[in-house]
Amino acid sequence: MDNSEFAIIRQYFAPLSAGWLGAEGLRNDGATLPPFPAGEAVAVTTDTLVAGVHFLGHEPADLIAQKALRVNLSDLAAMQARPLAYTLNLALPGHLGMDGGWLQAFCGGLAQEQRDHPIPLIGGDTVATPGPLTLTITAFGTVPGKPLLRSGAEPGDGLYVTGHLGAGRAGLALLQRDPAATGPVVQRYLLPEPRVELALALRGLVSAGLDISDGLAGDLPHLCKASGIGAKVNVDALPRLAGVTVHDAVAGGDDYELLLAVPAVHADKAAAIARGLNVPLTRIGYCDWEPGTIWHTGDGQRWLEPVQGFQHF
Amino acid sequence: MDNSEFAIIRQYFAPLSAGWLGAEGLRNDGATLPPFPAGEAVAVTTDTLVAGVHFLGHEPADLIAQKALRVNLSDLAAMQARPLAYTLNLALPGHLGMDGGWLQAFCGGLAQEQRDHPIPLIGGDTVATPGPLTLTITAFGTVPGKPLLRSGAEPGDGLYVTGHLGAGRAGLALLQRDPAATGPVVQRYLLPEPRVELALALRGLVSAGLDISDGLAGDLPHLCKASGIGAKVNVDALPRLAGVTVHDAVAGGDDYELLLAVPAVHADKAAAIARGLNVPLTRIGYCDWEPGTIWHTGDGQRWLEPVQGFQHF
Repeated sequence: MDNSEFAIIRQYFAPLSAGWLGAEGLRNDGATLPPFPAGEAVAVTTDTLVAGVHFLGHEPADLIAQKALRVNLSDLAAMQARPLAYTLNLALPGHLGMDGGWLQAFCGGLAQEQRDHPIPLIGGDTVATPGPLTLTITAFGTVPGKPLLRSGAEPGDGLYVTGHLGAGRAGLALLQRDPAATGPVVQRYLLPEPRVELALALRGLVSAGLDISDGLAGDLPHLCKASGIGAKVNVDALPRLAGVTVHDAVAGGDDYELLLAVPAVHADKAAAIARGLNVPLTRIGYCDWEPGTIWHTGDGQRWLEPVQGFQHF
Repeated sequence: MDNSEFAIIRQYFAPLSAGWLGAEGLRNDGATLPPFPAGEAVAVTTDTLVAGVHFLGHEPADLIAQKALRVNLSDLAAMQARPLAYTLNLALPGHLGMDGGWLQAFCGGLAQEQRDHPIPLIGGDTVATPGPLTLTITAFGTVPGKPLLRSGAEPGDGLYVTGHLGAGRAGLALLQRDPAATGPVVQRYLLPEPRVELALALRGLVSAGLDISDGLAGDLPHLCKASGIGAKVNVDALPRLAGVTVHDAVAGGDDYELLLAVPAVHADKAAAIARGLNVPLTRIGYCDWEPGTIWHTGDGQRWLEPVQGFQHF
C-alpha cells in the first residue's frame, strides 16, 4: 500500500467527493462550495473530536466516522440549514495512518452517512500526529435569509426537545463498564440521530434553537442568556429511554437532540409536523421573563439536585 | 480566570469576529459566511498543524497563530481567491487551556494577521487534548467564476515561483540546532509570506498554480500530473536567500511560495505586476510535452541529486 497523503486521498477520500465537480477529486489545494440557490446564505459549523475525550477511541472506525459527521449534521439542523458539503481534517496516529483497513472502514462510515444525508466531501487535510486520533469536520449548509439562532426565544414560548435525553450519557456509562455492551442507549451514544429533516420542516415555526451536546443543563442556559429570558422545566416531562435516569436526562451530554423554543401559536402545527416525520417532539417547559432556569417536578415541587453540563476544561 | 470553553470564546476569540455580524459574536452553534458579490464562488481550504510535526511547538504563541493563518492565506492565494473569513479549531493540551497568557498571545497573533489581511474569524471549536497542540484553520475566499487550479498548465508555459525557495527548510534546520537562532531564513520559516495581493493581481494571466508547502520537488509533480504535462527546471535559477543550498530550494518544505504556470503571451505583464507589488517572481523553467520533471543546471547538464518532497506518513 502506498501510504503517502496523496495515495490516501485518491484511494479513500476522493470517492466521497462524488457529486460535486468543484471538489476536483480533492486534487487541489482547496475546493469551491457547490452552487446554492440565490438568496440563500451559507451556514458553517465545525467540531473537533479527540479520541479519549469526545469518544472512547476503540469504537469501530465506521462508527467513529458516522458519529463525527452526525454531530456536524446536528449543528446544521440546529441552524435549520440544509446540508451542502463538508471538509474533513484527520490527524492520524502512525499506526492508523498505516492501517488501510481502518481508513477503508472509516471512509465506509462516511459513505454510509452520505447515503442518508446527501452531502459531498469537498476537501480536507490528512496529517500524522504523535497524539490521539483527532477529527475535525466543518459542515456547510444553506439557509434562506438567516439561520435559526439561540437568541430569538420570547417569554411564553414553549420549550421542546426532540427524541430522548440522557441516552448518550447512559450509553457511555454502559460502554465504559463493558466495551461490548449493546442496546438502545448504547446505540444512541454511538450513533446520535441528527434531526435534519424535522429542523427544515419547522422553518418559520421556531423562535430559537440549539442542539444539546453538553447536556440540557449545560445548553439551555445558552439559549436563555442569548434570548434574555429564563426557563421553567419539568424534569418529569423529559423524554427518556428505559434505563436513563432523570439526572442523566438533565445533565448528560452527547445527545445531539434539538432544544427548540416554539411560540404557542405554532405549537399544534409543529407537533403535527413532528408526528408526520415520526420524530418525538416533547414539550418540557416554557420560556419565562425571570432569568435563570427553574427545574421542577411533575407535581410542581422545585427539583434541587445539583446539575451541571459538560465542562471542557 | 474562568476556563470554560464559553469564557475562552468570549474573552479571546469573539473580538476576532468583529467585522462580520453573521458570526454572532461566536455565540451560536455556527455562523453564516459574510456576503460576497453575486457571481462569485466560495473557495474553501483547510490545514491541520500539529505541534512537533508541522511546527516545533515551542515557538511564541503569536507566531504559531500567525503562521497557521498565513498557511491558509497562501492556499487561498494559490486559488487566486480573495480572503473572506476563517474558522479555527484548537485542540489544547491541558496546560495551555489553563494558560490565559498563551491564549491571549495566540489571539494577538491572529489579530495582527487580520490587520494585514482583513478576514474575520467566524466560528470554530476549542477542545482539550491529551496530545500535542493541534490547530485546524479553514479559510474561505471568493473567486469570480472558477478558482485557479493545478490542471490548466500547457506545454510552453513558463514556470515561475514567488519569493525565495528553501528558506523554510534552512530556517527550521537553524532553529533545530539553536532555538534562539534569528535571521532572514529563520524569519521566513516562522512567518512565511502569503502572496495574496500578487495572486489576485495575476488573475487571468496564469494557467495553473499551487503553493509550495512540501518542497518544489514534492509539489511540482502535482501540477504536472494534474495538467498532463512535464517540466524542465533550471536548479541554478531557483531564487535563494543567503545560506540556502540548491538542495534546500529543490526539496525543502514550508516555503508557502506560489508555483505558477504563465503562458508566454502574459509573461511580460505578469513580471511587471510582480515588480509593481515588489514581490520577486522568477522564471525557473517551463512546461513540456514530455511527462516527468527534468532538473538541470544553468549550463544544461542534468542535475541528478536525488530529490524528494515532504512525506506525511
